[in-house]
Amino acid sequence: MEEIGVPTLDGTPVEEDHEKIWRLFAERFHLYAGTPSGAWLRYELEEVFGIEKRLDASTAMEIYECISSKLRSPEFLPRALFDRFNIEVLATTDDASSNLEHHRRIMESDWDGKVIPSFRPDAVVDILADAWKGEIDKLSDASGIDVVSYKTFVSAIENRREYFKSMGAVATDQGILSPYAKQLGPSEVDAVFQRALRGSATEEDGRLFTAHMLMEMARMSVDDGFVMQIHPGALRNHNRFVFERFGLDKGCDIPVATEYTENMRELLNKYGNETDLTIILFTLDESTYSRELAPLAGHYPALKLGPAWWFNDSLEGMARFRRMVTETAGFYNTVGFNDDTRALLSIPARHDLSRRMDANFLAGLLARHVIDKDEALELAYQLANGLVRKAYNL
Amino acid sequence: MEEIGVPTLDGTPVEEDHEKIWRLFAERFHLYAGTPSGAWLRYELEEVFGIEKRLDASTAMEIYECISSKLRSPEFLPRALFDRFNIEVLATTDDASSNLEHHRRIMESDWDGKVIPSFRPDAVVDILADAWKGEIDKLSDASGIDVVSYKTFVSAIENRREYFKSMGAVATDQGILSPYAKQLGPSEVDAVFQRALRGSATEEDGRLFTAHMLMEMARMSVDDGFVMQIHPGALRNHNRFVFERFGLDKGCDIPVATEYTENMRELLNKYGNETDLTIILFTLDESTYSRELAPLAGHYPALKLGPAWWFNDSLEGMARFRRMVTETAGFYNTVGFNDDTRALLSIPARHDLSRRMDANFLAGLLARHVIDKDEALELAYQLANGLVRKAYNL
Amino acid sequence: MEEIGVPTLDGTPVEEDHEKIWRLFAERFHLYAGTPSGAWLRYELEEVFGIEKRLDASTAMEIYECISSKLRSPEFLPRALFDRFNIEVLATTDDASSNLEHHRRIMESDWDGKVIPSFRPDAVVDILADAWKGEIDKLSDASGIDVVSYKTFVSAIENRREYFKSMGAVATDQGILSPYAKQLGPSEVDAVFQRALRGSATEEDGRLFTAHMLMEMARMSVDDGFVMQIHPGALRNHNRFVFERFGLDKGCDIPVATEYTENMRELLNKYGNETDLTIILFTLDESTYSRELAPLAGHYPALKLGPAWWFNDSLEGMARFRRMVTETAGFYNTVGFNDDTRALLSIPARHDLSRRMDANFLAGLLARHVIDKDEALELAYQLANGLVRKAYNL
Repeated sequence: MEEIGVPTLDGTPVEEDHEKIWRLFAERFHLYAGTPSGAWLRYELEEVFGIEKRLDASTAMEIYECISSKLRSPEFLPRALFDRFNIEVLATTDDASSNLEHHRRIMESDWDGKVIPSFRPDAVVDILADAWKGEIDKLSDASGIDVVSYKTFVSAIENRREYFKSMGAVATDQGILSPYAKQLGPSEVDAVFQRALRGSATEEDGRLFTAHMLMEMARMSVDDGFVMQIHPGALRNHNRFVFERFGLDKGCDIPVATEYTENMRELLNKYGNETDLTIILFTLDESTYSRELAPLAGHYPALKLGPAWWFNDSLEGMARFRRMVTETAGFYNTVGFNDDTRALLSIPARHDLSRRMDANFLAGLLARHVIDKDEALELAYQLANGLVRKAYNL
Repeated sequence: MEEIGVPTLDGTPVEEDHEKIWRLFAERFHLYAGTPSGAWLRYELEEVFGIEKRLDASTAMEIYECISSKLRSPEFLPRALFDRFNIEVLATTDDASSNLEHHRRIMESDWDGKVIPSFRPDAVVDILADAWKGEIDKLSDASGIDVVSYKTFVSAIENRREYFKSMGAVATDQGILSPYAKQLGPSEVDAVFQRALRGSATEEDGRLFTAHMLMEMARMSVDDGFVMQIHPGALRNHNRFVFERFGLDKGCDIPVATEYTENMRELLNKYGNETDLTIILFTLDESTYSRELAPLAGHYPALKLGPAWWFNDSLEGMARFRRMVTETAGFYNTVGFNDDTRALLSIPARHDLSRRMDANFLAGLLARHVIDKDEALELAYQLANGLVRKAYNL
Repeated sequence: MEEIGVPTLDGTPVEEDHEKIWRLFAERFHLYAGTPSGAWLRYELEEVFGIEKRLDASTAMEIYECISSKLRSPEFLPRALFDRFNIEVLATTDDASSNLEHHRRIMESDWDGKVIPSFRPDAVVDILADAWKGEIDKLSDASGIDVVSYKTFVSAIENRREYFKSMGAVATDQGILSPYAKQLGPSEVDAVFQRALRGSATEEDGRLFTAHMLMEMARMSVDDGFVMQIHPGALRNHNRFVFERFGLDKGCDIPVATEYTENMRELLNKYGNETDLTIILFTLDESTYSRELAPLAGHYPALKLGPAWWFNDSLEGMARFRRMVTETAGFYNTVGFNDDTRALLSIPARHDLSRRMDANFLAGLLARHVIDKDEALELAYQLANGLVRKAYNL
């Protein structure tokens, strides 16, 4: 990671010569053969930059120059690309205490691109994290509510959701290890919260508080209409060496087996029958597609399935998703495709792939007379556009 | 559910206008696109009723009239359909205490259709169910044995199995959450049974009693020759609201991950080597096909795999079953296709689909020279007819 | 098993008439339709023996005679077949205390076939096995180190690894139920070892000692350069009746669900970032391919994925492996195909199948423009030869 210039937390020097880093990347680019990362990058080079040569050691610097020069042109400024890509809505995820300054600046600008925030409370919900106390202080500051108890915590969260809503947000998002949901009693949850404030929360406290906050976030969504997104099943910072050397989010999150049927039962029993609520569930555990997620989404009115996510946001991964969930959940309990890329340039590649994959899936059903042609055409629209628009109330 | 006329337990009125319900169903029928329910209904309309128009809002009432009029004709009486569908055997599942009156009436009629019962002891085995004590009273009545102890309970069960056998039954069936099997000692099991009679059985008592009764049912099958069917892995009545409002079996059973290798070990060690016994295992957890079920069925002489079941009784689900189990279990450790529909009219659709899917699977093997043509033809017969006939001793 | 001549431990007579056994096998050979065992045997008969007739009751004895006569010819001596099959390297797995006498005799012979040992310490690591104490005595004898403590145990293991290395070994191999790895402290591990020597080790001791030895084997591999192979997830001797009657390894090992993300974390944190170390992980639990194994191998430099193994060493199984792991792990974090057959004659069939399957997979990527033709050709070489040569430092 040093060789490709990932900065170290302790300031140990890393490679800073961008051309050298690019050459190394180009020399090793064949290692990406057959992977979505490789496919996206090829697509970006060809479709976005118009480069027809394949990236390898021999073409590295020529392509480097070409990209450098294009990136300096006005056509490659982010807002220009946003317009060129024909993006209708881009949603970011933002900490509960964020002032959403960048969103405000976009709103106040003369650019009419729609970039909306989403409410992500993970940092203030994870009472076991080292940084939690500091996050609570930020939450107090941001909300103007002095968070000294569970009750004030909830008020502050509700306050921030309201602010996010005023800034255009339509959804929340939670990243959790397990989708376990359980309502605690008022005194029980405050006791947990007080232990957390004193720095003496146990592992079990952390597990229960996260479970309780899933219930609470659902309750709040019933109130304020936010779509509730749940992304479970990644064990974060698996590689402690990389985590300690390079910090958070350096690619070492690894999925674990995830259980939905029993874990989500209390939440779905309380809120799953709400017809005005939308809960969108994602998974990294494909064994749950046909066993748990499709039956749950086929049954509960509030529940929709998010598309194949992260390690499965790929040709084969997307195809497995459709093959494993459609027969039980149908198409209309899914939400079309929403990628969760951080790479602006990869957006066209990912949506193009998703649309081709879905079109191919529909064509297979049509060829086997499972659906008729007019249904295939309507579904092609729904999967590319209609369902996602409906799911997120856009 | 109120809008489609599902009766409530407390008598709250629900929609009773059949035409209105049908119109609502027709308007929403596109939501079934790509699902087996949708495919079966289309097949039924076209093949059974001869209706070529597609069901939607515009055709709803015309199709309603057509169905109504056909259902009033003698050709659409159940026995006429049974004959038209060329059904050789239809097996029902019946409570241990059932007097099988309807079976008796068929036997005594001049109709020669073969409708046989199967012995399903779930209601008298589930000692934790609210209704259990009442079920034990029924069992006492039906068997003429006063069930006051585990020993009398077993005698009553054996008595009922004998009665079912005299009425043509060839198999038992058990629906359980986990296929955990464990033999308890005589005093241990009676202690559990006495606690259950007193209404003080614990969760663990319930788990152990079910595990013990799996062993006992296998022992009895060795004695009386009944095929033993096990359907594990559904968490029943997941949606408490629907359960309390509409009652049992209203579509809210959700699968859970199921473990066979360790759970079934004691049972397979004791009875799996019996060459005269047939145990048919089903699953709702496809991750066990290649990992556990196929290796177990490939090894134990008594064990056969039931077909893709419930949420997997579908084109893709059946194809995955064959692809995941055949290489390890072979074809001859499976039992062909037996649907478990409650909808008489769906029987031709489901068997037609199963036969086409198997024929396509065999054709794939033939095209790749894995099997020869004569083998493919023989297997086509076996999968459609021979294996199921053999497995159930028909 | 008696009918096909598998010897019983207690000497109860079994069938000894080879022709009768072969006839029985031929009569039942159709039961293997669609299985890899069936496919390998067909391939062997046709490609290795040149027999074009299909094996069944009518051809049984003719084929028997043909095979018998060929097996008596010099062309069918093992070394002749080894040369004919164009095998570059064949690795056996050998107990820690083995004197590798057969390897020595091959080395000292004038035959230049390369047959190398691999270090398999399972028998001396499994402190709960009845035979463990005897295995420790053998280890003392073989190493010349009196194993009376954990420290002397480790010295003896290191001594044997050195001997194996001198005999050409390049890898170790461990068969374990769970890939759980955990380093114990020096006094803790010696306490466990002393309990084992006294015959009083608990189940938990056994679990921890195996977990600790995974860490230790990785440490030793960093030192001596041995590739570390881990084969987890088979519950051994599932069928106690068969085990007690016929002994070890009689085909009754059944897979269990296997967890890698949390279990391997400590090992991967300590050794997974070593660029000089190669750990090759196998699985019998396909649900871990895309969920755990591919993400782990995509991240940790030391980790590579072994090919589809045992019950999945088959056409469909291999195809699932490539489809489930390639997108996240890429091709270059896999090791090509290494079968683990005990049947010399099945080697060509298995490698031929693997190469055809991989070629077909690559052709699919090429046809869909995921890779270019020159990449497909390079990958075809890598998957058949290059990657395995590199992974095992051959």
